[in-house]
Amino acid sequence: MAIEAARLSPSLAAAAFLSRLPPPASLRRALPLLVPRRRHFLACASASSSTGGDGRAVALPSSELRKRRGASSSASGEDEKLRSLRSLFARPDIAIDAYIVPSQDAHQSEFIAECFMRRAYLTGFTGSAGTAVVTKNKAALWTDGRYFLQAEKELSHDWTLMRSGSHGVPTTSEWLNDVLPSGCRVGIDPFLFSFDAAEELKDDISDKNHELVLIRDLNLVDEIWGESRPEPPKEQTRVHGIKYAGVDVPSKLSFVRSHLTENGCDAVVISLLDEVAWLLNMRGSDVPNSPVFYSYLIVENNTATLFVDNNKVSKDVLAHLEKAGVNLKPYEAILSNVERLAENGAKLWLDSSSINAAIAHVFRSSCDRYVKKRGKTDRQIGKESSSDKPTTRSSGIQNGTLNALYKASPVTLAKAVKNDAEIEGMKSSHLRDAAALAEFWCWLEGEIDKSVSLTEVQVAEKLLEFRQKQDGFTDTSFDTISGYGANGAIIHYRPTPQSCSFVKSDNLFLLDSGAQYIDGTTDITRTVHFGEPSPRQKECFTRVLQGHIALDQAVFPERTPGFVLDVLARSSLWKIGLDYRHGTGHGVGAALNVHEGPQSISYRYGNLTALQKGMIVSNEPGYYEDNSFGIRIENLLLVKEVNLPNSFGGVSYLGFEKLTFVPIQSKLMSLSLLSPSEINWINEYHEEVWEKVSPLLNGHSRDWLWKNTRPL
Amino acid sequence: MAIEAARLSPSLAAAAFLSRLPPPASLRRALPLLVPRRRHFLACASASSSTGGDGRAVALPSSELRKRRGASSSASGEDEKLRSLRSLFARPDIAIDAYIVPSQDAHQSEFIAECFMRRAYLTGFTGSAGTAVVTKNKAALWTDGRYFLQAEKELSHDWTLMRSGSHGVPTTSEWLNDVLPSGCRVGIDPFLFSFDAAEELKDDISDKNHELVLIRDLNLVDEIWGESRPEPPKEQTRVHGIKYAGVDVPSKLSFVRSHLTENGCDAVVISLLDEVAWLLNMRGSDVPNSPVFYSYLIVENNTATLFVDNNKVSKDVLAHLEKAGVNLKPYEAILSNVERLAENGAKLWLDSSSINAAIAHVFRSSCDRYVKKRGKTDRQIGKESSSDKPTTRSSGIQNGTLNALYKASPVTLAKAVKNDAEIEGMKSSHLRDAAALAEFWCWLEGEIDKSVSLTEVQVAEKLLEFRQKQDGFTDTSFDTISGYGANGAIIHYRPTPQSCSFVKSDNLFLLDSGAQYIDGTTDITRTVHFGEPSPRQKECFTRVLQGHIALDQAVFPERTPGFVLDVLARSSLWKIGLDYRHGTGHGVGAALNVHEGPQSISYRYGNLTALQKGMIVSNEPGYYEDNSFGIRIENLLLVKEVNLPNSFGGVSYLGFEKLTFVPIQSKLMSLSLLSPSEINWINEYHEEVWEKVSPLLNGHSRDWLWKNTRPL
Repeated sequence: MAIEAARLSPSLAAAAFLSRLPPPASLRRALPLLVPRRRHFLACASASSSTGGDGRAVALPSSELRKRRGASSSASGEDEKLRSLRSLFARPDIAIDAYIVPSQDAHQSEFIAECFMRRAYLTGFTGSAGTAVVTKNKAALWTDGRYFLQAEKELSHDWTLMRSGSHGVPTTSEWLNDVLPSGCRVGIDPFLFSFDAAEELKDDISDKNHELVLIRDLNLVDEIWGESRPEPPKEQTRVHGIKYAGVDVPSKLSFVRSHLTENGCDAVVISLLDEVAWLLNMRGSDVPNSPVFYSYLIVENNTATLFVDNNKVSKDVLAHLEKAGVNLKPYEAILSNVERLAENGAKLWLDSSSINAAIAHVFRSSCDRYVKKRGKTDRQIGKESSSDKPTTRSSGIQNGTLNALYKASPVTLAKAVKNDAEIEGMKSSHLRDAAALAEFWCWLEGEIDKSVSLTEVQVAEKLLEFRQKQDGFTDTSFDTISGYGANGAIIHYRPTPQSCSFVKSDNLFLLDSGAQYIDGTTDITRTVHFGEPSPRQKECFTRVLQGHIALDQAVFPERTPGFVLDVLARSSLWKIGLDYRHGTGHGVGAALNVHEGPQSISYRYGNLTALQKGMIVSNEPGYYEDNSFGIRIENLLLVKEVNLPNSFGGVSYLGFEKLTFVPIQSKLMSLSLLSPSEINWINEYHEEVWEKVSPLLNGHSRDWLWKNTRPL
Repeated sequence: MAIEAARLSPSLAAAAFLSRLPPPASLRRALPLLVPRRRHFLACASASSSTGGDGRAVALPSSELRKRRGASSSASGEDEKLRSLRSLFARPDIAIDAYIVPSQDAHQSEFIAECFMRRAYLTGFTGSAGTAVVTKNKAALWTDGRYFLQAEKELSHDWTLMRSGSHGVPTTSEWLNDVLPSGCRVGIDPFLFSFDAAEELKDDISDKNHELVLIRDLNLVDEIWGESRPEPPKEQTRVHGIKYAGVDVPSKLSFVRSHLTENGCDAVVISLLDEVAWLLNMRGSDVPNSPVFYSYLIVENNTATLFVDNNKVSKDVLAHLEKAGVNLKPYEAILSNVERLAENGAKLWLDSSSINAAIAHVFRSSCDRYVKKRGKTDRQIGKESSSDKPTTRSSGIQNGTLNALYKASPVTLAKAVKNDAEIEGMKSSHLRDAAALAEFWCWLEGEIDKSVSLTEVQVAEKLLEFRQKQDGFTDTSFDTISGYGANGAIIHYRPTPQSCSFVKSDNLFLLDSGAQYIDGTTDITRTVHFGEPSPRQKECFTRVLQGHIALDQAVFPERTPGFVLDVLARSSLWKIGLDYRHGTGHGVGAALNVHEGPQSISYRYGNLTALQKGMIVSNEPGYYEDNSFGIRIENLLLVKEVNLPNSFGGVSYLGFEKLTFVPIQSKLMSLSLLSPSEINWINEYHEEVWEKVSPLLNGHSRDWLWKNTRPL
C-alpha cells in the first residue's frame, strides 16, 4: 500500500486520497500524520514549468531553488539555517525543544506559492511531499518512496532521511516521542496544520507528555529566510462572469446561509481557495495550475467578508463584490475577525479537515475568554439584570468547543454538482482543448516521421504552445506528464530538461496533460506508439481500453458511490493478472482545481459519496510495466440522468456523457480481443470526435483527425 | 431499504445480512433491535414441509399450530395466555413491568426446534420473524412487511400489530420508552438475546431509566406453555466421517487452541450449532434443513467439553469424542461450567455477536464475585502469602469485563474455507443433486405437456422424492421456493397446500431449492417457461443471465471483498433500469448450513471479508416484476486460484469454479442480446453439464438432458 501511495500521479492522486476512511496503517506510515489526509494531492514544489517571476508563485527546478537558497546549504559544519532556527528555540517567547515544518500552505492547497515553500527552503529537499522535524541536536526529513533518491541527493549531512513506509521507520510523532526526553515542547505554525491534523499530533505526542506549542505570531522558517524570502503573490483577481459561473454570488451566499440556519450556526469560515473562488465567482492566479487567490471568506447571516490583499482587487472586482454585499478586509485580519465572532457569541461552522489550527484555536480560546468575561460582568450586575433580554446570543455559550460546529463545508458538494453554465463551459473548453491536441498530435507525428529529436520536455512545451493559441486559455491545470518508454511507467513522472528522454518511435509515449480555460478545466491522457507496438503492448493497451469503455458505458441507480464502479475499469485487466495501483477517477472543477472532491471512483472503499447528476469525474484506467512502458487512457465524464425504458425502485438511473474528444490510437488496439459492442463504442466515439472537433481545424490537423477517426 | 429487507428470500438472506456494518437506520426500524444482526437469516417457523413428529422439530402450517395452541387464543375477553403471562410479572422473584419475547433460540439459529417457537405460541402469529412485547396493559408484535397480512389474520384483538419499517412505527425500545413510566423493569430471557443485542437494548431503554432484567432461571412463556410445550428434540447425532470432514477433530481443536494462545485466552465458548458440528465432525437432526444438534462446546487448552443431551450420543459418537479428548456434560450444565472457568480465573473468548447474554453475564458476574472473594481471602492471609506463586492465573483479574475477549469466533473463517475433502463432497453431492433435478425437470415437463394439474406444493414434493432417491440424501437445505407466475415475484414465497397456485404453461416458474447430503449441501434456482415466454420475459431473463455469467467469469486479486464483484451481476440489468433487492451471493456450508458467513457478495458495502480460495458462494442475480413474474438463476461457486500469464503486484488471482450442473433454459434467452463470449459460456456450461451428469441418468431423463444441453 505504501508503494501504491508513493506511485500516485498528481493527475490521479485525488481519486485515491479523497477517501474519507483513514488510510490503512501502512499508508499512514508512508504519509506522515502531518500531511492532511483529505486534501493530500501531490503538490508540485519541484515542477519544471514556469510562467513568471517576482511575486507570482513559480515552480522551479530544484537546481534553481538550490541557487536561490544561497551558500548556507553548502557550508561545512552545522547547516547555517539549522543553526539559526535552533537559536530561535531558546528565545523566551518561543521556548521550544523541537519544530515541525510541513509542506502545506494555510489553505491545504494542492499547488502553493513559492513564499510558502518553507520546508524546501529549510531542508534543500525540493520534492512536493515531505515533513521536516528539527530538535536541538537532530534534524530529520520524512518523505515517501517517490523521493528517496532525490532527497538523498538534496539533503545535507545534517539531515537524516526518514523513508516513510519503509520497515521500521517511525512516524514524526513516534520519532519525537523517541528522541525527546519526556515533557518537551514541540512547536508548530498552526496555520500550516489543519485542525484535525494538529489535534492528532497533539494527541500522539502527549503519550510522552510533550506539549504541542502553537506559535502563531511568527513562522520560524520565515524568520531565518528573512529578506530573501519571495514576496507573497500579488496577482490581480478577476470576476468569473455569470456566463461561466451560472449562478450569481447572492444566490450562492443565500444557499450557504440556508445551511447556516439549518445547522443553527451564525457564520462559516471558508478557507479552501477553490471554495472561496467558486462562492464569489472570482478567479486569480496566485499559484500555478489553479485559478485561485490567497484569501479567506467569512459568511454570516447578513454579511460576508473576504479577507484578501487589497491590491489584488481591481475596481471591477470591487464593484462585483459590493453588489453581492461582500466586504473586504486584509488577508491578515482573519484571526481578529474570528475573535470578534467569538466575542459576539456566534456559533461558528468550521470544516475541521481543512480549516487551519490557527483559526480553530483562536475561536476556541476567544470563546473561553469571552465566557469568563461575561461571567464576571454578569456577577457584577447581579440578579437585577437576569430578567433582561440578553443583548447577544451568547447566553448559551459553555465554551469554544460547544460554540463550534465541525462539519464538512457546505460548499464542497454544491461546487461538485455543476450547473448548466458550468457544464456548457466545460464542454466548450474541452472542444477547444481537443482542437489543440489534434494540432499537437498531428505536429508530433510529423516531427517523429521526419526523425526530429525532441525531448519529453520539448514536446510538453510545444503542447503548451498549441493550447495557448486557444481562446480563453489561462494556464496548464497541472504539470504535464510526458513519459516516453520506461518513463511512462512512473505514474508521477516529471521530465526535467536536464534529465529527460527523447520521444522516439520504438516504445509507447504517455501524455497526461490539462489546461485551465476561462470557461473550463481539462485533463486528458493518451498513449500512442509512433512505430510498431509489440503484441504485449497491444494486449495491455486493449485491456486498459476495455476497462475505459466499460466504465464509460456504465449505467447505475442514483445513490451509487463511485467505488462501486471501479471494478468495471479493472476487470478486463484482472482477467490476465494485471492491475494498476491508482484510483480510476477523480472529480474536476469547472474552471477551477483539476482535482476536487467529494466524489471519486476508486478501489479504496471508504468514500461513500454518491455520484450525482452534474458531477464531473475522470475515467483513467492504466497499466504500468516497470522499466518498460506505461499506458493510461483518460477522458473526463459528466454524470447525467439517462432515460431508460424502466426505472426499478422508482429511482433515477445515471450514466456518463463524454467531455473529452480526442482520438484513441487504433494502432494499439488488438481487434481480436474487442467485442462487437466495444468496437462499436470506439467507432461511435471517433465519429463524434470528428463531428465535434473537425469544424475547429483545418489543413494537416484536420486531415490527421480524419485519418484517426475512421471506423475500425 | 425496509422493503428490501422484507423481501429477502431465505435463500438470499445471508448475502444481505452478513454485513458487518450496522444496517441503515431504515432497516434497523424494520428489524427490531432484538433480532441479532449478524446471523439473522429468515427462520421458517411457518414452513409447510414436515418429516416427523414427537421430539423432532417439525415445521408446521400455521393452521396446525393454531390447533395445537388450544382454545386460549379464541377465548373472548383478555387473552388467556396474556393473562397468565402478566400474572407472572407480579411474582416477587420476577417483579417486572414488561417482557420481551423474540423469535430466537439460544444459538441464533436460522432454523429452530418447535419447543423454542415461543413467540409463535404466545402471539398466535406464526411468521418466521417477529418480536412480541407485553406490558401490564399492552401487547404488541413487531414484524416486517412480508408478514403484515398474515399477522393481521393471526393476532387476536389483544395484540397491536407494529408494522416495522412503516412510517412512524417505533422500535421496541422506543415503544417501551414511550408507554412505560420512567424507571420500569423490562424482563428478557437472556438465552434468547445475543450479548450484543442485550447490551444495545439495555442502553436504549436506559434513556427512560428502565432497567433490563435478565430472567435466567425460567422462561415466562414456557411457564404458561406448561405441559403442552413440545419436548426438546432428541434426535441421535452421528459422526461426520473423516472422508467428508477432511480434517480430524484433534487437528481442529489444535487450531482453536493455537488461536487461544495467540490471543492470551484460556478457553472459548462455541455456541453456534454449525460451528460445534464442524469442529467436532458431528452432525445431527434437531432442526429442519440444517444437520446440527443443540449443544455448546467449551475448548480449553487441555480439554474440550461438549454440552449436549446424553441421549443423543450413541456409542460410536461417544468413542469418536473420547478419541479426540472431548468430554460430555449435560446441555444445561453450560452456565455452571462458565462459572467454574471464571472461578479458575480463566480468560474467556466470547463471540459477542453470537454468544447469548446468559452466558456472557454469568461469566462476568462470576468473575466479579470471584475477585471479591479472592480479595477477601488475600486480606485474610495477609502479606505472608504475597510472595507465593499464585495458584491460578487469576492474579491479573480486575473484573469480568477484563477477563473476557469479545472477538469473532476462531471457527467462522476456518469453516468457510473448505478443505479438499469438503470440496470433493460438495462436488460429488452436487452431481447427484443435478441428476435428481434433471429427472425432476424431465418429469415436470412431461406432466405439463400432458396437462396434468399440479400445484406448486405438489411440484416441490415431487422434487423431494427425486432427491430422496439419491445416495446420502438427508434433508432439504431450506424450504423449497416454488413460485409460479406472480408468486415468483415474491422473493420469500412459501406455497402452502391451502393457498398455492397451479404450475402452468402461461407464465414463468421459479424454483429455488436445495438439499442436505451426507457429503454436501446444495442450493440451486432455475426459472423456466413451459409455453411461450413473452419478449419482455426473455429480455429480463437474458439480462439476469448476463449478470450471472459476468460474475461467474470474474477474476480478481486476492484480498478482494465480495461486495466489489456485486456490480458485475447487476450492470446488465441497470442498463435498462432494472435491479433486484437482494444480495447476489451468500456462503454455503459443506454438509452444513445453507447460509454461512463470513463472506458474501452484496450491494451492502459493509462486509469487508475477502473472498478466499476454498470458500463457496452462491451466484444468484434475479429480477422480480411485482404481480407478474420472478426470475432468478442460481449456481454455487467454489473460489479457486487461477493460473494467469501475469500476476501483477505479486499477488494471487482468484476466480470461480462451478459446482452446480443443471441446464439453464435456452428458450428464455434472447440471442440477439448475448455477446459471442456469453453464448460461448452457455455452450461450454451445457457441454460440461452433459459430460458430468449424463452418466448418472438414463432413459427419458438422459434424453431430456441431451436436449437441454445442445449448443445455442
